[in-house]
Amino acid sequence: MQPRVKLWVEKDGLLVFSDYRAELLDHIAKTGSISGGAERMGLSYRRAWGKIKEIEHNLGVRIVRSEVGGLGGGRTTLTTEGEELLARYRSFRAAAQSHVGRDFAEAFVRDG
Amino acid sequence: MQPRVKLWVEKDGLLVFSDYRAELLDHIAKTGSISGGAERMGLSYRRAWGKIKEIEHNLGVRIVRSEVGGLGGGRTTLTTEGEELLARYRSFRAAAQSHVGRDFAEAFVRDG
Repeated sequence: MQPRVKLWVEKDGLLVFSDYRAELLDHIAKTGSISGGAERMGLSYRRAWGKIKEIEHNLGVRIVRSEVGGLGGGRTTLTTEGEELLARYRSFRAAAQSHVGRDFAEAFVRDG
Repeated sequence: MQPRVKLWVEKDGLLVFSDYRAELLDHIAKTGSISGGAERMGLSYRRAWGKIKEIEHNLGVRIVRSEVGGLGGGRTTLTTEGEELLARYRSFRAAAQSHVGRDFAEAFVRDG
């Protein structure tokens, strides 16, 4: 038997962050654009953009910053708050997954 | 912000136990019958019975025992394995939920 866990974060009862959203943010950071992140997630640009705006609206902070123009035409990067959100969520997820595994082993294997 | 967690247990890639199944088992134990447990869960008898059989099939153990006859006509109780499964799952869930809460606080509140 294996324990399974799904984690997410809510604010005022609304889903504000999750593995899926973390993955999208990560792809945007790595590709330097919302369209690049959208493509890697198999999403339309419009849908990826909507997810980002939704997170920003629900949290009340900007998580990406778009710079227009320049060679290659613009670029999207994470704001400090966006980077911090992603880093904190990953740290939370890693610790929680590890604890869930240990808690399962203790409950099910102990004296088993 | 609040962390949220959904836990379940798989065996060979199949869902074998969850909060929902734990609740059903608990209601069967408390009411002394599958039909009583089903009613408290808002399920048909057939569906509750099917869930129990599915868990038993996937885990390869009997988790309930039905005694036929007697005054009031029969009674269903948890087997030792059923009681143990429920107790272990609850212990796992309580520990995991507590850890997830602490992991979230550490990741999001620390230096926040």
